[in-house]
Amino acid sequence: MAGRGFYLAITGGIGGAKLALGLSRILSPEALVLVVNTGDDFEHYGLHISPDVDTLIYTLGGQCNQDTGWGRSEESWTFMSALEALGGETWFQLGDKDLAMHVLRTNLLQDGLSLGEITSKLAGSFGIQNSILPMTNDFVQTKVNTVDGLLSFQHYFVRERCKPVVREILYDGASIAAPNPDIVSALNDENLSGVILCPSNPFLSIDPFLSIGGVRDCLRNCRAPIIAVSPLVSGKAIKGPLAKIMSELSIPVKANSIAKHYSEFLDGFVLDNEDREWEQTITESGINALVTNIVMRTMEDREQLARDCIELIDRLAEKPLKKGGAKNDKPMGSDSG
Amino acid sequence: MAGRGFYLAITGGIGGAKLALGLSRILSPEALVLVVNTGDDFEHYGLHISPDVDTLIYTLGGQCNQDTGWGRSEESWTFMSALEALGGETWFQLGDKDLAMHVLRTNLLQDGLSLGEITSKLAGSFGIQNSILPMTNDFVQTKVNTVDGLLSFQHYFVRERCKPVVREILYDGASIAAPNPDIVSALNDENLSGVILCPSNPFLSIDPFLSIGGVRDCLRNCRAPIIAVSPLVSGKAIKGPLAKIMSELSIPVKANSIAKHYSEFLDGFVLDNEDREWEQTITESGINALVTNIVMRTMEDREQLARDCIELIDRLAEKPLKKGGAKNDKPMGSDSG
Repeated sequence: MAGRGFYLAITGGIGGAKLALGLSRILSPEALVLVVNTGDDFEHYGLHISPDVDTLIYTLGGQCNQDTGWGRSEESWTFMSALEALGGETWFQLGDKDLAMHVLRTNLLQDGLSLGEITSKLAGSFGIQNSILPMTNDFVQTKVNTVDGLLSFQHYFVRERCKPVVREILYDGASIAAPNPDIVSALNDENLSGVILCPSNPFLSIDPFLSIGGVRDCLRNCRAPIIAVSPLVSGKAIKGPLAKIMSELSIPVKANSIAKHYSEFLDGFVLDNEDREWEQTITESGINALVTNIVMRTMEDREQLARDCIELIDRLAEKPLKKGGAKNDKPMGSDSG
Repeated sequence: MAGRGFYLAITGGIGGAKLALGLSRILSPEALVLVVNTGDDFEHYGLHISPDVDTLIYTLGGQCNQDTGWGRSEESWTFMSALEALGGETWFQLGDKDLAMHVLRTNLLQDGLSLGEITSKLAGSFGIQNSILPMTNDFVQTKVNTVDGLLSFQHYFVRERCKPVVREILYDGASIAAPNPDIVSALNDENLSGVILCPSNPFLSIDPFLSIGGVRDCLRNCRAPIIAVSPLVSGKAIKGPLAKIMSELSIPVKANSIAKHYSEFLDGFVLDNEDREWEQTITESGINALVTNIVMRTMEDREQLARDCIELIDRLAEKPLKKGGAKNDKPMGSDSG
């Protein structure tokens, strides 16, 4: 990797945060910038809650609940029990420690700070040195159109436990939102070495960012290689409702569907050893494929997958990128995937 | 006491709540209506906090911290520690259980419920059957003009620990606020047997209510006896900054100063055995005096003082009240205090 170069990783919560953690452990703080989904953000009890931002902060700060993948380690639930005793809603669990983030964030928003400034401040409190950039400072809300009607993301995801059949996923506010300006600067920075789409749910965690005006153009025009890591292994999501949603949207639940989903700007795709059968299809579509272990059970798994991603990017950077058109105007080279 | 009669007790937090508890244990639920100060209410971290309402609810609900007199029993402070770690303000302690009250109250206010409706709902969750009426549904804020400048009540009381010398106490918003309509109805109810001003700080806990437009008139015209219990014993406040404030306001720190403070509508005054020396002065001012033990250490003390108050009221009700003028037009009778 280049001395002054840096990598941009785009992530949602749990699964993506695992790879972000691996990347943060093999790269210097200034060599990794993290873009995080805020399409899951919502107001609950007057509090502004940013689930993916918090999951990423807790994960990088070493204070994530290892059992659930979300929430804080050594969490307590006294507030929640007291709220329940008062007849309050309890479908969204608010831990006593976690609550401090929501209360402080809400207060700082009321004081006029942007979500980006607040995230930076909160991450700093956890000793995190990487830049964590919320995808936008505006309010973009993922909504799920289901057979039971239109649901806000948290109502679909947490309250209804993803049970209603999905017809369509919408990103309310995306057309009038602006991407976080620090992200646009990073994507246009000549020192950008590469972009990694973490193994998050494309529809719920990555597309909210992609749906913001100008972001797809930015990625199509990006001079650095862009790769994605599959969130599927053997047709199953490692965690979460991705497989269910894909089948409800009539999309084949296969790793190559993910590569295809990002194909307009994708240079490389990392898929699991179990999905080796799709390597050729992906390669033939003009995307470099890397087959490796993408299941991150241990910290070593996280670091190894991070290394695999960086190596793929660095290899792609050394040769003309497969993708032509708007992305770059160099002649197509041979595939080494 | 009359079969259908009821008593109205006006209280602030800790000390007053102790007598309210005693009253609640010797009277049937429908025979005791409680009026509580909301001049201490404030917004902190976007939450609407009603310290005296909550202290009263916790006390009557059997969930008050016995050591402090405020806050909840078996409280935990995980949220506060987490907030401190994030660099948040910690001068106002927010327990994990206590926080549930603030979050739910704030949310219900945003939903359009009145403070009275919310208090009723919250008290019901604690199994409290008495009516607890916040003094107003409007926002009246006690402010303390000190040698260090004008301070909001909680900044004076909690953050500055009552250290700045007091020049004047103001009740911001009182002139445009309306008393809780349920209180006005109760004061005009023909079944009202008597009014008890609990041993709360007159300046910080009772005057905010008295300062609301129409309340003093209502009390002056009240046909039922009105009594007060001294918050002072031997020139010292049982708890809190009352003695300090009185001396700073150049008011003698004596039980009879309290009787004098309420003299425009007061029929009876309960003072401690230690202050027997003031009995005659108070009696001569036209207020019936009852000398008894007013220090409430045990539950029996609370119940006994409650019985003393009810007996004094019932005795006053059986004869023409001493106070003449607007209060009633009966001839003055002899003093039996």
